Amino acid sequence: MTMVEQPRVIGTRPIRPDGVDKVTGRARYGADVKLQGLLHGRILRSPHAHARILRIDTSRAEALPGVMAVVTGRDLPVADDRVEELGESSANLRELSHNVLAGDKVLYRGHAVAAVAATSPHIAVEALRRIEVEYEPLPPVLDVRDAMRADAPLLDENRRTREMGQIAPDAPPSNIASHNQFQQGDMDAGWAAADVIVEREFTTKMVHQGYIEPHTSTALWGADGYLTIWTSTQGSFVVRGQVSEILRLPVSHIRVVPMEIGGGFGGKMPVYTDVPAAMLSRRTGRPVKVTMDRTEVFEGSGPTSGTYIRVKVGATNGGRLTAAQAYLAYEAGAYPGSPVGAAMLCMLAPYDIPAITIDGYDVVVNKPKTAAYRAPGAPTGAFAMEQVVDELAETLGLDPLQFRLKNASKEGTRQSTGQPFRRIGNIETLQAALATPHYNQPLEGPNRGRGVASGYWMNAGLKTSMTASVSPDGTVSLIEGATDIGGTRASLAMQLAETLGIPYEAVKPTVVDSDAVGYTDVTGGSRTTYAGGVAAYETGTDIIRQLKERAAAIWQVDAADVAYDAGVLRAAGDPSKSMTFAEIAARLHATGAPVVGRAAVNATSPGGAFGTHICDVEVDPDTGKVTILRYTVVQDAGTAIHPSYVEGQMQGGVSQGIGWALNEEYYYDENGRMANASFLDYRMPTALDLPMIETVIVEVPNPGHPFGVRGVGEVPIVPPLAAVANAVYRATGQRFRDLPMSPRRIVEQLHGLA
Amino acid sequence: MTMVEQPRVIGTRPIRPDGVDKVTGRARYGADVKLQGLLHGRILRSPHAHARILRIDTSRAEALPGVMAVVTGRDLPVADDRVEELGESSANLRELSHNVLAGDKVLYRGHAVAAVAATSPHIAVEALRRIEVEYEPLPPVLDVRDAMRADAPLLDENRRTREMGQIAPDAPPSNIASHNQFQQGDMDAGWAAADVIVEREFTTKMVHQGYIEPHTSTALWGADGYLTIWTSTQGSFVVRGQVSEILRLPVSHIRVVPMEIGGGFGGKMPVYTDVPAAMLSRRTGRPVKVTMDRTEVFEGSGPTSGTYIRVKVGATNGGRLTAAQAYLAYEAGAYPGSPVGAAMLCMLAPYDIPAITIDGYDVVVNKPKTAAYRAPGAPTGAFAMEQVVDELAETLGLDPLQFRLKNASKEGTRQSTGQPFRRIGNIETLQAALATPHYNQPLEGPNRGRGVASGYWMNAGLKTSMTASVSPDGTVSLIEGATDIGGTRASLAMQLAETLGIPYEAVKPTVVDSDAVGYTDVTGGSRTTYAGGVAAYETGTDIIRQLKERAAAIWQVDAADVAYDAGVLRAAGDPSKSMTFAEIAARLHATGAPVVGRAAVNATSPGGAFGTHICDVEVDPDTGKVTILRYTVVQDAGTAIHPSYVEGQMQGGVSQGIGWALNEEYYYDENGRMANASFLDYRMPTALDLPMIETVIVEVPNPGHPFGVRGVGEVPIVPPLAAVANAVYRATGQRFRDLPMSPRRIVEQLHGLA
Repeated sequence: MTMVEQPRVIGTRPIRPDGVDKVTGRARYGADVKLQGLLHGRILRSPHAHARILRIDTSRAEALPGVMAVVTGRDLPVADDRVEELGESSANLRELSHNVLAGDKVLYRGHAVAAVAATSPHIAVEALRRIEVEYEPLPPVLDVRDAMRADAPLLDENRRTREMGQIAPDAPPSNIASHNQFQQGDMDAGWAAADVIVEREFTTKMVHQGYIEPHTSTALWGADGYLTIWTSTQGSFVVRGQVSEILRLPVSHIRVVPMEIGGGFGGKMPVYTDVPAAMLSRRTGRPVKVTMDRTEVFEGSGPTSGTYIRVKVGATNGGRLTAAQAYLAYEAGAYPGSPVGAAMLCMLAPYDIPAITIDGYDVVVNKPKTAAYRAPGAPTGAFAMEQVVDELAETLGLDPLQFRLKNASKEGTRQSTGQPFRRIGNIETLQAALATPHYNQPLEGPNRGRGVASGYWMNAGLKTSMTASVSPDGTVSLIEGATDIGGTRASLAMQLAETLGIPYEAVKPTVVDSDAVGYTDVTGGSRTTYAGGVAAYETGTDIIRQLKERAAAIWQVDAADVAYDAGVLRAAGDPSKSMTFAEIAARLHATGAPVVGRAAVNATSPGGAFGTHICDVEVDPDTGKVTILRYTVVQDAGTAIHPSYVEGQMQGGVSQGIGWALNEEYYYDENGRMANASFLDYRMPTALDLPMIETVIVEVPNPGHPFGVRGVGEVPIVPPLAAVANAVYRATGQRFRDLPMSPRRIVEQLHGLA
Repeated sequence: MTMVEQPRVIGTRPIRPDGVDKVTGRARYGADVKLQGLLHGRILRSPHAHARILRIDTSRAEALPGVMAVVTGRDLPVADDRVEELGESSANLRELSHNVLAGDKVLYRGHAVAAVAATSPHIAVEALRRIEVEYEPLPPVLDVRDAMRADAPLLDENRRTREMGQIAPDAPPSNIASHNQFQQGDMDAGWAAADVIVEREFTTKMVHQGYIEPHTSTALWGADGYLTIWTSTQGSFVVRGQVSEILRLPVSHIRVVPMEIGGGFGGKMPVYTDVPAAMLSRRTGRPVKVTMDRTEVFEGSGPTSGTYIRVKVGATNGGRLTAAQAYLAYEAGAYPGSPVGAAMLCMLAPYDIPAITIDGYDVVVNKPKTAAYRAPGAPTGAFAMEQVVDELAETLGLDPLQFRLKNASKEGTRQSTGQPFRRIGNIETLQAALATPHYNQPLEGPNRGRGVASGYWMNAGLKTSMTASVSPDGTVSLIEGATDIGGTRASLAMQLAETLGIPYEAVKPTVVDSDAVGYTDVTGGSRTTYAGGVAAYETGTDIIRQLKERAAAIWQVDAADVAYDAGVLRAAGDPSKSMTFAEIAARLHATGAPVVGRAAVNATSPGGAFGTHICDVEVDPDTGKVTILRYTVVQDAGTAIHPSYVEGQMQGGVSQGIGWALNEEYYYDENGRMANASFLDYRMPTALDLPMIETVIVEVPNPGHPFGVRGVGEVPIVPPLAAVANAVYRATGQRFRDLPMSPRRIVEQLHGLA
């Protein structure tokens, strides 16, 4: 299915270059950084969900022997009150700065207030105890609907709602940061054409990405004014950009070294520990490491939004969707920036519906500022939409997959952007799901049910730079800037190898720091294998051009008469003139300059992708425990460069989605204290909780990529919330429209106890 | 004098980017590498100058608790018996391997025999004591002339002299590895035309570069078969190449991280500690660091040759040189490869002589294998030639500089390669020397004398790769592979800044490891500012092309209508359309792909350079102490990119040359034991021994470089040996033709005691 006639590397399953290092413990993560004279930093965090800071006295902490420096938000430069593009996302610089170290107010429990650097971690902890902060507690607002009320406590008295991009002069202060609406088609006609209309409301709770490795940064601010940060991040350049803006230090003065990363899922794009580590290093002239503990990760980093969603969908008795309306209110956390916009783009994308209206609200609450989390916004949108679609199918007496297929979006269908889709694989994915052994094997037994759901993610493109240098042993050193989270060293090396017609093992990829490669956006938005693949292809093409010129010089022919195919150079019309890649590589040294390929791309055609999931559950009516019996993911990968890693992404996304569906939630008391801020109490699924996730890769090549790649990492978390809910409905006869479907909630609802 | 009409950066004296790091102690040198689980390696060295190894028993060492591994030469793969290009130089692979860990024979005292890795350095030292080596001592040969005798002990019974590149079938075994002759012109006519002929013979001793930092390597050979080496080297790629050949590991499996370097002067191009560190890491699975102490550096690394030289030169009474003949016999140390070839190219280069014959002999002796040392071979050649020229000038009653000027080589003069010189600055340098205040101020007082001498070095070009990425703050990240020894981060950043018309401070250079940049040859041969400058210019040109295209896209004009001059883009015919470099840099992110410049060059026109030195001395006839009263260097730099660093190179070269002239020597006993293998006994000049060295930079641009650069680092060590000797002659009335002119030798000769 790829655009290469006979791929030799793409589609194989080689070992990742960083694999041995990672299983033997040699790989270096952020916390492994050890520097001469290293100081230990710790962060003081707000015990209040909402309070004014009246006074901070750090003198007793500073007097403690071993304490080298204390910093607070007052030590930060005043940031501009403007929104800046920062890699994949954008942020208001003042808010970004205040989230890192609070200004006049703390807006959530766990909000960073001060940071200390000391000669030992124990002294640092003791120093935190000695910092006196006088707070004026304010009433917190913890739920999106509460926050939207006119009489709600205001997080920021100067905030007014941006309505469709504009702030009205007479707008009152509000926690609603923005409201946007997308509308297309004739809604009245749509509703009029409907024989059945289902309208439901849904709620979901704030959940965390749950990456294994906490945030950790080590900073060294030299006497020359140049700052180096070793950090766990999804993107060295986005850290560089944020630190630059917050500290008002030119990007050229900041080097960010991306260490190996123990998971991110979107949550390691904003900066947290980087800034206090840098400030403390500047104060002390020594390297400072700041590492969060798990409670700090939960309370002080960025989870994803709790939501309130209403969906109304109409269909004809013949099974045609006629109109859909959605109302999405997303918690942004303490500062604006929920993923409601992405939810608006994705939730109706699997369907071709003549008339749609979507309203999205971005709402601040006294909880941590949200960050991206794998297909940000889309899973909760799908949780709502896919249950309504399921209910319509049941009402109409249609198979839920056939119903989806009948209404499936395809090339030319207008998206929720107003633009038509290019070539997409939605129909092929649904057909493949219908053909799976899983779907064709009946599920039997009491308290059991099968649910299906679809989901969409549009994927990102963005910027990637790359160079690659040919070595005399016939190999290529590939130099890239994208943090490798899910095997992208391999997936990019494979695409370069395919382009050059050489073995995968002949490409040696290295991820370097922000000073050592051209600008490269975050590993996020499922963009790295896609945009990095475009760069790898262009880099390979650039090398081939140079090799043709060299061969032409060696053979004394015209470069235009040299062909390169499958790793072999040939001169036109002279079969004696032929050299393999390895042969010319060995001759480069003696025949001229080194050969270095280069690409710097802005990839703009990522190609959205669809998944359809099938889930079998058994619900214990006494305990409320939901057991996942079987789960199959069917997803369009465009072209699967490394099928094992595609399958791994699909399985990983589902695992996280099942946790979100069944157990995960930020559980708050009325004062805004998270009651379960540890992995003991915040229940993520383990391997024992899940069956082997079955996978079916569909390949409908993306016309916007030389090998047809679509992003694969985010789509698989979109359907599971709904797929599980639909399965639980079939098992219990009851619709669960509030997440998580925890044992307690299931028991309460089944037995009418709530 | 530069080729830029009005240079804005070239010729200024900014602070080097690594300066603050180096003066504050933050810069990381090889010995600063600390890794988890690090083992300490030590090397067992031969106590004999020449011996057969009959047996090595490592069992008692291996049994010592804390000893993790022991390796010997028998653990090395058998290397090919062939000569391979390795960066700047070439080497026989088997000999290269045997020099790192001895094979069946040890060929010098200090020759590495075994290496151990232990959990502490003390255990490692104790383990060396427990390795039993049974030697059959053989008579050593320590002097080049002794080694050339037919009855000399043979270092290698299979070695036969390569005569002009060919080995005769009936050639007897010999320590003379090669003999080459260069001849041009009619010698008989030359001698017949001479009114005066002077013929003299000279000897010089083996001397060491004396870099402050000993050799040090840390190796980590991963379970995945990939080897990383952190090392003190002049070139990461040349280490990679040698380690690859010796260990038979593909270059792609070796990453060499060049740490900051505490001096090299040519001596840090061959590998020593890298290989045993790697072998020990493979055995143990842990990182191993091997650092030499000073005695090991003297006895086990590569100094430069002791020599025997005869020179015969004829001149007319009118002061015209008519013929010259030279016989050069250079000690190679234990394996072939002295710099006699370079000496042949350089020693007559300052002169236009109708007929010349030069014979060069490369001779093995039982002393350490020589390595490059700043203008390798040329200082000793000049020591001989420039004294003979001085004697001729005196005999003819001519001023020694005017005599040189009368016979000076210039553009078109045939070199000792047979090729004519391109544009050179020999005459301008002599004229500048004649015009110096120093030369025009008479030297008065007893026991004082003034000497002059000229010298030449052809400089190297070779390969350099580079990339540079434009950042939104209007700066450029410059990525290079050349170890920065003498300020080349600055000199390359300056040339990129000049090309782009931006400030020096806007270029941030980074030296990266061998996996993270295209092939780049050693920092040696005075090539880095020259060839790196070609690469910087091409990189800048590549960036300008991309910026023009971007500006054209922004302005919606044709790229051919966009001009770039002095850091400003302008559209033809529309004065409103103009952007500075900083302005377009800030707009790149929003308007397309990143901009990354790239160059990979094979620079082939380095442009040789000349220096003329003036030296005033006072000789104490009672103690033999020579005091340098005043010293002036006049040298053609082509174009001085950073004049302070050019001056620093000139001063540094002179300082080393004065040490060589007056005090330095490998002092051997008859058994081949170096008696002075420490800095206490090996007397290098300190700041207290030298006056401020005065410098005059002559700028005759090199037509083979975009800014006119010639190499500057090596030329200044060529004349001092002779300049001091000529000054001592004028002070004492005696010619000293044997180095060093130590107090003892001067007293002995002045008082007829020798």
